Amino acid sequence: MTLIDSLRANKRDSIITKIASIEDVSIDGFCSDILNGYTVIPKNKKRSFDKACAIGKGLKIKVNVNLGTSPDYEDIEGELRKLDLSVRLGTDTVMDLSVGANLEETLKRVLEHSPVPVGTVPIYEACVKAGNNVKDMRESDFIKAIKRQAEEGVDFFTIHAGITKNTLKVLKESSRLIDIVSRGGAIIHRWMTLTGNENPLFTRFDEILDIAREFDITLSLGDGMRPGAVIDATDAVQLEELKKLGELQKRALKKGVQVIIEGPGHVPLNQIKKNVDLEKSYCNGAPFYVLGPLVTDIAPGYDHITSAIGGAVAASCGADFLCYVTPSEHVRLPSLKDVRDGLVASKIAAHVADLARGNKSAMQRDIDLSKARRKRDWKRQFDLSIDPEKPAEYRKDSRPSVEDVCTMCGEFCPIKISEGTKKS
Amino acid sequence: MTLIDSLRANKRDSIITKIASIEDVSIDGFCSDILNGYTVIPKNKKRSFDKACAIGKGLKIKVNVNLGTSPDYEDIEGELRKLDLSVRLGTDTVMDLSVGANLEETLKRVLEHSPVPVGTVPIYEACVKAGNNVKDMRESDFIKAIKRQAEEGVDFFTIHAGITKNTLKVLKESSRLIDIVSRGGAIIHRWMTLTGNENPLFTRFDEILDIAREFDITLSLGDGMRPGAVIDATDAVQLEELKKLGELQKRALKKGVQVIIEGPGHVPLNQIKKNVDLEKSYCNGAPFYVLGPLVTDIAPGYDHITSAIGGAVAASCGADFLCYVTPSEHVRLPSLKDVRDGLVASKIAAHVADLARGNKSAMQRDIDLSKARRKRDWKRQFDLSIDPEKPAEYRKDSRPSVEDVCTMCGEFCPIKISEGTKKS
Repeated sequence: MTLIDSLRANKRDSIITKIASIEDVSIDGFCSDILNGYTVIPKNKKRSFDKACAIGKGLKIKVNVNLGTSPDYEDIEGELRKLDLSVRLGTDTVMDLSVGANLEETLKRVLEHSPVPVGTVPIYEACVKAGNNVKDMRESDFIKAIKRQAEEGVDFFTIHAGITKNTLKVLKESSRLIDIVSRGGAIIHRWMTLTGNENPLFTRFDEILDIAREFDITLSLGDGMRPGAVIDATDAVQLEELKKLGELQKRALKKGVQVIIEGPGHVPLNQIKKNVDLEKSYCNGAPFYVLGPLVTDIAPGYDHITSAIGGAVAASCGADFLCYVTPSEHVRLPSLKDVRDGLVASKIAAHVADLARGNKSAMQRDIDLSKARRKRDWKRQFDLSIDPEKPAEYRKDSRPSVEDVCTMCGEFCPIKISEGTKKS
Repeated sequence: MTLIDSLRANKRDSIITKIASIEDVSIDGFCSDILNGYTVIPKNKKRSFDKACAIGKGLKIKVNVNLGTSPDYEDIEGELRKLDLSVRLGTDTVMDLSVGANLEETLKRVLEHSPVPVGTVPIYEACVKAGNNVKDMRESDFIKAIKRQAEEGVDFFTIHAGITKNTLKVLKESSRLIDIVSRGGAIIHRWMTLTGNENPLFTRFDEILDIAREFDITLSLGDGMRPGAVIDATDAVQLEELKKLGELQKRALKKGVQVIIEGPGHVPLNQIKKNVDLEKSYCNGAPFYVLGPLVTDIAPGYDHITSAIGGAVAASCGADFLCYVTPSEHVRLPSLKDVRDGLVASKIAAHVADLARGNKSAMQRDIDLSKARRKRDWKRQFDLSIDPEKPAEYRKDSRPSVEDVCTMCGEFCPIKISEGTKKS
């Protein structure tokens, strides 16, 4: 029985009460949102871990960190250090997106280490095992990778099942600037083009649902056609796939499988609300998992910032789940520092949206920090911060001659100058 | 004659045609916007510099960098290095906010060096010269500092003329978490509280206008009561002052003096549009100059990011001018690296808003960069970036074994995998 099955049978797992209590929402509403497909709890039946979370309607915004090796960097220990750092800084989930040759071993280690839900894109495994000779991949290889990773314990899968021959027709007729920027999308596109066959993730979706049911894996329906340039945002190619994802979401839900919908990508600020509204409408209110969105193309080296802008706005408009983007996006595999910068930016975006959506515990944290700021209680101010270490280092490196101010204003500190005069 | 006087007399300075051409707007509309107070060109008659700019209606969003010494750091050369870096990275204006003992010398050097408009807050000079003994400041000291800096060549002044006895009454009755976070606001508040007198910047506003007229200085009417915590945003204290600024703007415009209105500060994302709308409504469409806004209080060390989120949204809703905020805000005087990070974040926010507002040249830059990205032309991609140096360093530090991809994906680069198959 999946989580949805058990709720349909009126059984409530302890995970339900635990998470409802953390989120401070009513258990009845929470259960009904899961049943309706508005909320998910990604967790493979085979795995047990400390920090389960729910993603969706009326809940705090969640963030994901991508990890994983690449052909140029196959250092598993380095990726595990990124995992540890991310967990310490409060990521809600991680995805192992390894495409290094040692991806099986990497995933095994990530699953052993991670106290948060772990996601993957199983077709990477099929492609890596075929030595990137996409044409040599058999349909059964797609399914085999999904099955192997399901048994390994993965909690959620990105499945690019929304790409069909029709999607490729729309793409061919489009005037897109950059055709495809999704690795999964590119692999499927190439496979379909070279073999002339329909996408096996689409044709064999029922088999995939059966595997997902067996392990209660949440499906994150991937956006292989997401725009990779702001000029391409919200185009016919993207929307063709999104509509298809909505149909697949219905089929999954019917079978008791939880679903998330993945979204863009590069989107100008004025189109973000429209993107969220379309997803909620086409995909029946399923949780929306966005990569960024990156609100401009021209800031390589700073895409954690372009994504924090897009993510904050998307989440305040109704997106539920933010995939972090690091400053090294478009340029290199992220370093440990890049992971830190990317995750902090994403957590800022999530918190900003929580505030905008009226979440009370989020606002209380701002109030508590501002009270400490008023008192110039530096330690408490930093302890309450999203990243306590960075501001503490700043202050250590730049000590004021008077302890209760900082080196920006010194004795001209406005809080200190105006202090005590209000009630006088 | 001020710029407004000359336009009223149907005379068009060469600066008008030059800027209208850069901005790609009609000269007639541009002149009419200046006459109506919707647009300003900050430039002291006595100063000539290379990079004049206009701020306001229908124009590209401009950004400002704050510089200046503090009692703990009186290193003028260090501040000039920040100035040079900021100009190289494309700041539109700078403000010298020095409160170090050597502030006269600092301002002199900044004015000599800067090819962009320079702004100040003249009452800092009055306060520093009084040794921060606010009570000892005479009304004439406020005016004297304004006059001296006007003659020195400053292009725009922050003047906190909107604070009156009534503002302090509203503040006293309020339940603000942090009363005052503006240095200028705190000085005036303290002076008024200790002397019992009305704010001289308000009572002697006509004298100030006469000085501004004489040198054609643009007034940036300061928000001494801006909220310093998101819970305080858009409160009665802030709005009381904003209304007063609208009245003062009318008086200034009548006298041919250009005006900008300063705005918050700490504002949650869902209140930003309201703040912009209120400013445009209370202040007769005058250009809106926002500090951030910072959309949460809990990210010291990363306030360039909280401000980039707020700034992008504010500017896409109609704000015209963004004051950068560095990662060291609330913690220390910014280092050179902090200035770089703060300015780049602010320029991202400005560009993101330009895109959202449909600016064609802004979109063309994204298109050009994305074309280079599609071709994996790394040099051109970085050359077109907001900061070309950082991504180039990233790539240098992390070389792929194959030249036309990056170390994130290696041979699994989606652009490369899908290349050439579209038209096949």
